[in-house]
Amino acid sequence: MDKIPYKIYLRESEIPSKWYNLRADMKNKPAPLMHPGTHQAMTKEDLMPVFCEELVDQELNVTDRFIDIPTEIQNFYKMYRPSPIVRAYCLEEKLGTPAKIYYKFEGNNTSGSHKLNSAIAQAYYAKKQGLKGVTTETGAGQWGTALSMACSYFGLDCKVYMVKVSYEQKPFRREVMKTYGSTVIPSPSNTTNIGRKILEEFPGTGGSLGCAISEAVEVATSTPGYRYVLGSVLNQVLLHQSVIGLEAKAALDKYNIVPDTIIGCAGGGSNLGGLIAPFMGQKLRGEQDYKIIAVEPASCPSFTRGKYAYDFCDTGMVCPLCKMYTLGSNFMPSPNHAGGLRYHGMNPALSQLYADGLIDAVAVEQTDVFKAAEYFARVEGILPAPESSHAIKVAIDEALKCKETGEEKTILFGLTGTGYFDLVGYEKFHNGQLEDYIPTDEDLAKSLSKLPKVE
Amino acid sequence: MDKIPYKIYLRESEIPSKWYNLRADMKNKPAPLMHPGTHQAMTKEDLMPVFCEELVDQELNVTDRFIDIPTEIQNFYKMYRPSPIVRAYCLEEKLGTPAKIYYKFEGNNTSGSHKLNSAIAQAYYAKKQGLKGVTTETGAGQWGTALSMACSYFGLDCKVYMVKVSYEQKPFRREVMKTYGSTVIPSPSNTTNIGRKILEEFPGTGGSLGCAISEAVEVATSTPGYRYVLGSVLNQVLLHQSVIGLEAKAALDKYNIVPDTIIGCAGGGSNLGGLIAPFMGQKLRGEQDYKIIAVEPASCPSFTRGKYAYDFCDTGMVCPLCKMYTLGSNFMPSPNHAGGLRYHGMNPALSQLYADGLIDAVAVEQTDVFKAAEYFARVEGILPAPESSHAIKVAIDEALKCKETGEEKTILFGLTGTGYFDLVGYEKFHNGQLEDYIPTDEDLAKSLSKLPKVE
Repeated sequence: MDKIPYKIYLRESEIPSKWYNLRADMKNKPAPLMHPGTHQAMTKEDLMPVFCEELVDQELNVTDRFIDIPTEIQNFYKMYRPSPIVRAYCLEEKLGTPAKIYYKFEGNNTSGSHKLNSAIAQAYYAKKQGLKGVTTETGAGQWGTALSMACSYFGLDCKVYMVKVSYEQKPFRREVMKTYGSTVIPSPSNTTNIGRKILEEFPGTGGSLGCAISEAVEVATSTPGYRYVLGSVLNQVLLHQSVIGLEAKAALDKYNIVPDTIIGCAGGGSNLGGLIAPFMGQKLRGEQDYKIIAVEPASCPSFTRGKYAYDFCDTGMVCPLCKMYTLGSNFMPSPNHAGGLRYHGMNPALSQLYADGLIDAVAVEQTDVFKAAEYFARVEGILPAPESSHAIKVAIDEALKCKETGEEKTILFGLTGTGYFDLVGYEKFHNGQLEDYIPTDEDLAKSLSKLPKVE
Repeated sequence: MDKIPYKIYLRESEIPSKWYNLRADMKNKPAPLMHPGTHQAMTKEDLMPVFCEELVDQELNVTDRFIDIPTEIQNFYKMYRPSPIVRAYCLEEKLGTPAKIYYKFEGNNTSGSHKLNSAIAQAYYAKKQGLKGVTTETGAGQWGTALSMACSYFGLDCKVYMVKVSYEQKPFRREVMKTYGSTVIPSPSNTTNIGRKILEEFPGTGGSLGCAISEAVEVATSTPGYRYVLGSVLNQVLLHQSVIGLEAKAALDKYNIVPDTIIGCAGGGSNLGGLIAPFMGQKLRGEQDYKIIAVEPASCPSFTRGKYAYDFCDTGMVCPLCKMYTLGSNFMPSPNHAGGLRYHGMNPALSQLYADGLIDAVAVEQTDVFKAAEYFARVEGILPAPESSHAIKVAIDEALKCKETGEEKTILFGLTGTGYFDLVGYEKFHNGQLEDYIPTDEDLAKSLSKLPKVE
């Protein structure tokens, strides 16, 4: 057989033409979204004022295994996909491990991450429905950037509520979004009822993702011709992100490579869910077993220390209730926490899979994460995003275990994006100013005490 | 024939294994470097205290058409090469032009530009010679970042003199270099005699590329085990950058595509020279004709308004004299000028080709450049560097001419890198604070009045 190249690229014609809907293969389906007032499962009619119609269909679809990717989206994908599977020869050599390490690199596009895979889909359906624009929130800024690019491509208006502390600390993210024609509003803002209420209550607040979601939803539902779109957590997002896993699997299949361990960072679950989708499908169908590891920050540990329960998706409690691993909708990660992965909950399908014991999870501290990030950058060349570096950290740990045992395991991890906009975090790391923070049991008990009461 | 894909990738095995030395095909060879004191052509012995030995050989080699790329460099190239040739379908459609537009995109690596192609070569030869480290200067920061990555890979110490105004305005560039383990010193600094002298004379100065070169050369020549390396202007750099053109030509050849017009931005000439190398070779050998356009900033117009003469390469006048198109070594582009392309001179081989009428040149203003950059970002997705956007601007102009005439020309341009670290420039553009600046004839006459007197 040929030597495995450093980068395995599919041909353009091999970019998937269908997304894979993992839920169709799940025996235990994820719990449905629930109306916050009536506690009934949300229907299409309930969701349509908030979301685009076809996205609602996708959100509710737990039976069709494959969903066609419209040609317009396929064409956009061709601008930055297929993304490469990289064999980390240099990292393996440096670690002196017998393990074979591969990563699927999603950072080679201007938004700098995998978020674009879903952004372009959501913008497309909004355009198709004849909408004027969309609203969203962004924390670290990757999603806002991706959505801005997508909206600019389809000529849609885009309003981004950006968590205020990010807005101030990441002026360059803001400028990229403006370059693509978006309006970027620091949240909480006085442009919404919820924003004004929060500002009154907490005048100096730096905002939170949950609060920005509430503002974006309020504007979407009160402005004719607008809908709300979201970059993670929802099942429709995981559906679009399945393009990552499908490409990864097709590329590995070309060389008969079967990973033993698949590792992804996990905030709301968009990357993890997308990366593992076809592999988990095989696992669910009993065709192949894989060890799948979700890596989350110790400062925001929804899988490892959260509760599997119905909770609010946003601070303003205007969104549907969602059954998921959650730290409580009022949980706030420490301000020391760098980068994303700071949402209080986790995608419902991934939550069910974790509850069923099909996914492992591990929480890591951010100084270790940045150490792994710098190590990786020096060896593999790519400056990784802090989010992606959670997966790097655990991939290195797993490879070092193989060094001890002599096992020649094949490890696949998701390198979701680049760290160009996270250099404040790197700077703190260089200057020894980065601190770890692990919430106490009391902290978590407190934030979890406010879960909604659901039968 | 197959439809041309959006991105043409070579296979890894098709990455060039030899660089192409354009000078071998030039009848009128570029003028040799000259000793500033004796006015004699610089010999290998003269240059060896400053540069690595094998790089001196390459600098002086005007006869060998091909030079083997060492395996170690080929392996590093595999981490981020081959770079794609992109068919700008979306841009063509948006412009409504019958022209076919292709660009060679060199931004998919952490240094964000083509500079890495030469950085890794220079670091390799330094390591091979058993040196401890290298010194260099950086302006916009692309070269310093690339060299830092390369030195980190080979375990070499790297000292980067960064033009002070850039050091202060681009703290993130600095942090990336630190992530790769480099020492970054704002120039002028008090670590060198020349720096101290300049600081005494001009206490508040923001520095210049010419001054940073002088400092880096002083440190290299006065510290045992160190040499100086440079990211542009020199012929050895163009040799390494020929990998761009060789890949571009090989990819186009696969689909029998022959460009009519080839466009590259030009500062010191590293990208332009690398991109056009094999095409210019054909032109010199009479095999094929191409229209080749160098695009430079109107604020630093060495080709279009400079003089073809021997000049100093640096402010401190410690480097050899070089015959090139120059604006005078004390020329300083306006502080309004965003991004790179601010060197006062131009690579000697390109200068000779321009003098011989084999290259066209055009100067463009920066507000037009940023307009083209934003337009391109919205249509093609990629956020371009301001430097690269000079080529975009002229590629769009050429495509619009085709729209008028109905000609189906094939245009190839070099997209040298991404603009992640140039968002201050984009911000100024969005806020209407970006100004154009064109030096007056008097300005140029003044800076050109200090050329060295050479027979």
